[in-house]
Formats: sequence, structure tokens, C-alpha cells
Amino acid sequence: MDQGKDHVAVIGGGLAGSLFALRLAQQGHRVDVYERRPDPRARRGAEGRSINLGLSKRGIAALSEVGLRDEVLSLAVPMEGRVIHTLDGTARFQPYGKNRQEVLHSIDRNELNDLLLDRAEAHPSVQLHFEHRCVGVDAATRSIQIADATGTVTPITADWIVGADGAFSKIREEMQRGQRANFSKEFLEWGYKELNLPARPDGTSQLKLNALHVWPRGHCLIVSHANRNGSHTLTLFLPFEGPDSFATLPDRTAISSFFTRYFPDLVPQLPELLAQWERHPVGSLVTTRTAPWHLNDWIVLIGDSCHAVYPFYGQGMNSAFEDCSALSAALTTTHPTSRLDAFRSYERSRRPHTDTLAELSKENFVELRQRVQSPLFVLRKRLDVWLNRLAPRTWLPLYTMIAHTTMPYADALARARRQDRWLLSGVAVAMVVLAGAVGWAVS
Amino acid sequence: MDQGKDHVAVIGGGLAGSLFALRLAQQGHRVDVYERRPDPRARRGAEGRSINLGLSKRGIAALSEVGLRDEVLSLAVPMEGRVIHTLDGTARFQPYGKNRQEVLHSIDRNELNDLLLDRAEAHPSVQLHFEHRCVGVDAATRSIQIADATGTVTPITADWIVGADGAFSKIREEMQRGQRANFSKEFLEWGYKELNLPARPDGTSQLKLNALHVWPRGHCLIVSHANRNGSHTLTLFLPFEGPDSFATLPDRTAISSFFTRYFPDLVPQLPELLAQWERHPVGSLVTTRTAPWHLNDWIVLIGDSCHAVYPFYGQGMNSAFEDCSALSAALTTTHPTSRLDAFRSYERSRRPHTDTLAELSKENFVELRQRVQSPLFVLRKRLDVWLNRLAPRTWLPLYTMIAHTTMPYADALARARRQDRWLLSGVAVAMVVLAGAVGWAVS
Repeated sequence: MDQGKDHVAVIGGGLAGSLFALRLAQQGHRVDVYERRPDPRARRGAEGRSINLGLSKRGIAALSEVGLRDEVLSLAVPMEGRVIHTLDGTARFQPYGKNRQEVLHSIDRNELNDLLLDRAEAHPSVQLHFEHRCVGVDAATRSIQIADATGTVTPITADWIVGADGAFSKIREEMQRGQRANFSKEFLEWGYKELNLPARPDGTSQLKLNALHVWPRGHCLIVSHANRNGSHTLTLFLPFEGPDSFATLPDRTAISSFFTRYFPDLVPQLPELLAQWERHPVGSLVTTRTAPWHLNDWIVLIGDSCHAVYPFYGQGMNSAFEDCSALSAALTTTHPTSRLDAFRSYERSRRPHTDTLAELSKENFVELRQRVQSPLFVLRKRLDVWLNRLAPRTWLPLYTMIAHTTMPYADALARARRQDRWLLSGVAVAMVVLAGAVGWAVS
Repeated sequence: MDQGKDHVAVIGGGLAGSLFALRLAQQGHRVDVYERRPDPRARRGAEGRSINLGLSKRGIAALSEVGLRDEVLSLAVPMEGRVIHTLDGTARFQPYGKNRQEVLHSIDRNELNDLLLDRAEAHPSVQLHFEHRCVGVDAATRSIQIADATGTVTPITADWIVGADGAFSKIREEMQRGQRANFSKEFLEWGYKELNLPARPDGTSQLKLNALHVWPRGHCLIVSHANRNGSHTLTLFLPFEGPDSFATLPDRTAISSFFTRYFPDLVPQLPELLAQWERHPVGSLVTTRTAPWHLNDWIVLIGDSCHAVYPFYGQGMNSAFEDCSALSAALTTTHPTSRLDAFRSYERSRRPHTDTLAELSKENFVELRQRVQSPLFVLRKRLDVWLNRLAPRTWLPLYTMIAHTTMPYADALARARRQDRWLLSGVAVAMVVLAGAVGWAVS
């Protein structure tokens, strides 16, 4: 262990926690990772259920910093755009960007997590502790209470602590106890259920592989991510209550007729639908916000533990990875001599952007389930791509800035709004010119 | 114990909890009240620090229902309006309503709480348990865990449970664990400190007794409530950080010069200022919102436990008491045969209004600390009172509706906005007529 380097405890061995642990170790720190659940790498061969995520520019940038970019991308399926499946069975492709570089990468969450844990564990300065959960924080003695699988509680004192234990973060709750800390959690009134769309017997995909597939139905929605084996992971989003909801699909007959009515093209492709429906749980979706993100120079939060968002912009993991880059830069570059200043500047520079992402992720829910099928929306997307090709430095569609750049989220939104104003002015000028020309022509 | 009546556990023996316990007992239920703190009635004779609240129409209506209206009002000092103290020492009176009926009642929070506890305890169906706190909720067995002063935990099973344990409600937290429950807490960046302005040696008040006094300074604010003994309880509101904040008043010199600068008229009236400053803690202010307010037909929340608001509209206690009326009406009148329906209708009919109150309470902070001194504001208030006198059924100022009626908060706000539109139209018409008349006169 290097003299002068820190001993850091990371709470949570999920995507953000394992990536940041590796990054800290590479910078010479000694790291202990405490994860509540058992080692997920032992579960392989079980159901094999996959949850897929869309890795984009921001996430890739953070993976590059730890040297894992190429290895991770080799596990992913590139998605060049969205295929919109309408009720009448037609499928329409909408590209994600103007070229082959502007794609998303569909990756299995578990596979990525396992890889990050493997690489972290392989580093001599990282120690992983599974079935160890944080149960308390004692600011006075700068120690946290860690309970092991047997329930034995041990106080842990590290130089500083990273909270990466997800949307329902225990360390956030404990560190903010008695503090003037703002917090909100808001659940979507829709839940989700994952279904596997298998590959054909010959291993080829039933759907175009290199795309995200969307079945937008307004009052319900299916989104699908591709897997390397040719299968697709479908996620059905549906209200919990009301007509056509999880509450009104109590039996096999109701489920079958629901799919026949709204997703007829999927019915022949999902022979295991009913069995899967019964086996897979209904998940819920939450947006959380909080402030502050740190407790003096001792505890700091990253990822979902400080800003969980709905999945509809596909930026949850990407923004969590971007937190790792931002916190690392604050600690090593901006404020190498003061951890407190680094934590403060990390939060100050980052929170407005994750707040914006929360709003964008809410708005994109309406886009995904409804607007993607409107002709006006398609026209607008085409115009965006065309303008972007015409003036690649001047005109950047919002989606491009969010998914294919590392421009801070709120800056991207502000620029998109500015561009919208230009576009409107341009359309207005064009109409005046056109009216003049028509007037001249008929006179 | 009546056959067919319920055994109800009330968590929290504060204002709402003790009032509701009494109400339930009067309706024939058997009630156990569990209060975390020791019996507050034992503390009498200690420092005698008072926290005063403004009791208004809504609170009085709920007290009438338990037969305590007159007894409580006999403990209160009526306040007929606000006295605004400007920096140059002038004091200007603004009436609260159009007559002697439209007043607020300044009451000592502790005295009121003690009275409610006394009356609840005197009822044979109420049992009070002090130093008993809720530590857990087990929905499966419909039992809650109650820890006594020694730490011994006992499971309690009542037919149903009322959560009345304040803004940081433990029972809310426990009942919502694992549920899709929304929650937010937001702290004001200002804190407060209470100071006592004593009566003169002959027992008379140094300030007009029958009024709320306000020293609005924009970046700081003092509000004062009258006590029956001629003293006043001042509350200084000040930012926690920044210039002129609690953080920048570290010593007696700084505090003295702060008061001399911004509250010179109070300096001779507060001989104990510095000693009190050091003795009294700085409090913080929080707004909370949550949904749902109940867990099936078993637990239901009232008062701050489901909607804490800033104190700037003086409606925190009044809205908590109004919850007691609303929940009681839902249980006995609207849905006497289904407790679940009663809880649902109570929340559905009440939550939009307490959400509105939260916003009004935030807005009134700006009004109290700044706008009350503006000539335009004073003019508008006078116009409101004058229109209200002219057409007492048609024109009701917002403040009148909130403080002197039991009209639901959101309905009051909607009506005030409608009135504002009438007023604007009226002013516009008047200006056109005036312009016409001037034009006619000069032509």
C-alpha cells in the first residue's frame, strides 16, 4: 500500500460501485467494496434472465478511463437506431445518428457487472465483501456499521466512503439522518415486466438485431434490446391500475387476449409468453433526487444513490459512470489537495445536469410510448438528421447530444432549445419568402 | 368498552394526535396513544419557553367538535391584524379581516398540547403511554413494534392505527417501506431562533398586544406572537449561510451590531437578548409531501406526518386539526361501513388542498419578509378589505378565505385567482372609461 494514498470503502458492488472501486485502485488507493447481495457471479447458469442496457458515449468514456472500453464493447450488440412497430404490423427504422459511429450498445447488465467485479477483484488493492451491508453511519467516530451474513455488526473506519448502493441507498439515508438534507422519490404509476424473445433454432434473430425495437401503443409500450445470442429482451411497460393494466391481467386468457389485441406480431414469436409472464416479477420505476451528495469530506454518493431516473432515455447507467469520471476528475485534477472541495465541486457541477436528466427521462416516456409514431415526429427527426449532416458542428439534435457526446445534460438541453428557436425563425422566414414568391408569381 | 367499536392506536401525542384521540374516544372507540417523548406536562416551571401559534377558523372548528372551543379560546390572545415595523421605527397596522370576528388567536403551543392531553387522559377510553416510540411496522401480522423507555420492544395489534408523529414520522417511513410511496422533504435555507420580549414590570405589553408584529427586512425577518402575560414570543428568521446569516453571527459583538443595524427599535426592549441567543437553539423548517396517506385499511396519517408546511401562513396546526375533522367525517358520515373507503376518500379529498397549502406557505414567506412593506401591497390589501366590506359574499380576499373560513385551500386559491382576473378587467374598463372622459373633457 502506497504511503499517502487513501483507504476507501465503497458501499455497493453494482455497476457504479465496481467501476469506481477499480478506478480508485488504479489511482493507488486501497479499496474495500461492501455489497449487500451474494456474489452475483455465482448465479450464472440459473434462469439466465437478462436485463439489457444501452451503453452510450458517456458510459464508454468512463470505461475507457479504466481501460475496459474494448472488452466491454466486444460483449455488446451495436444498435443503429430504433425500429418502430405499429399495430398493423409495419416496422419503420429511425437511425440514432448520422453515421455508424453514432450508435448505442446493447449490453447485458449482469454480464457487465460481472466483468467489472472480476477486474476490480483482480486488482491487488481491491477487496470485495459480499453479503455485507451498511446498517448505520456514525459521523462522530467517522465509522460506518457493516453487518455480515450472520448479522454480526462491525464498525468500519476508512479514510473516506463512497455510497453506490442504488436508488434506495441505505448510506444516503443514514448519512442524511438529522441533517438538513432534501430528498424526493417519485414512483411512476406504470410498472414493467421483462420477457425473452428467443432466437430462431438456427441462432438467427427473429427481429433486426442491430436496433432497439419499440412497440408504442400510448397506453402501453414494449421496448426491446438485442442480445449477442440472437435473442431479444423485451420490456413491457404498463400501468399498475386501471383499464389495460397489470391489475386487469389476472389470468392466461386475459394476458393472451391483451397481446393479441395490442402486439399481434409478437404473439407467434413468444411461444413461452404465458409461462414467462407468471415467472417474471413486475418491477417499479422511481425517480429520486437529493442534496447534499456528500457528508463533509467523508462520504460521497454516486449513481442511483443520489439520482435515480426513469429508464426512458437509456441514461441511468451512463450517467452513473459519468459520475465516476466527474468525481475522479474533481479529486485528482480540480481539487487534488482538498477532498471537501472536490466533493463540493463534484456535486455543484454535476447535480444540475442529473436534475435535467431526470426531467428528460420523464419526457422521453411520452415520446417512446406515443410520439415516435406520429408523422410530425418522424419528419422532425429526419429534419434533425439532415440538418446535422449539413452542419455537423452547428446543428446537434438533442438525442445526439445526450447519447453521442459528453456535453453536460443541461447544456445539451439549453442548446437544443436554442436550435428550436432558430428552426422556428427559419421556418417563419421561409414562409414569408414563399408567400412573397407566390404573390409575385400570381400577380 | 362498546361492542362493535374499535381499538385504535395513535402514534404521537402532539397537537393532532391528542385531539384525534379525544375525538375517537368520544365516538366510543378505545384509544391508546404512544408518544416518543416524556410527558410534556411534567416540564412546566422549567424554562417556560413558549412557542406560539395562530389558531384560526379551521382549527377552531375542529376544537368545537370535541367541545373545547371556548376553553382553548380563553387561553388565547386575539390578534386583529399585523403591525409592520419598518427600519425607521414607524409601525403600521394592517387588519386581518373586516371585523372583530375575523381575527387570529395567539396560543402557546405547549399550553394547548397540555390541555388536549389532559382532556384525552380524563376520558375513560383513552390511555396515554409516554416514552413509547414506534420502531417498526409489520403489515403481515398487522402489528407495530413499540419500544418503551428501557428499550423493550412489544408488538401492538390494534384494529387500526393513526400516524400523528410529525414531519419526521417514523410510522410513515415504516409503513411505506417497500411500497410504491412518493415522498419529498425540502428544507428552507433559513433557520429560526425564538426570543422572548418580556412584559413591562407592571405586566403591560411593550408592543400592541392584540396583533401579530412583523419586522420585514427582506434578507431577515422577525415575527412576534402575543402571550397572555403581556410578553411576546419573537421568532427571528435568518439564512443559515451567507452574509447576515446564523453562520456570520458567531459572537456577542456580531449579534449586537446585527440587531442595532436591522432591528434598532427592539434593542432596548430585549435586555436579555445575548443570553437568550446563546441559550436558544436554531431551528430548521421543512416542507414534506407524501402519497399514499394510508396503508390499506390499517394505518392512516394526519397532520405533519403527511404534510408538514413552512409556518408562514400560520396554517400548520390549523390544517392538522382540519385533518382530524375530515378523517372523522369520512369514517362516520361518508363511509361508515368501509374504513378503507373512508381512508381513500379522506386522502383523495384532502391531499390536493394540503399540497396547495404547501405552496401558499412558501409564497407567504416572500410576502411576510418583503412585500408587506410595499405601498402597492398595502394598497391592494386595503382594496381587498374595501371590496370585501362592499360585497361580503362576492369578494373574499385570499387571506380571509384561508384564515377565516373552512373553504378547502385549493378552492380558496382558485377563487382568489378568479377574483384577481375580475379586478384586472375592472381596472382595464375603468381606465378606458377614464381615458374617454379625459378625451371628452379636453376636446
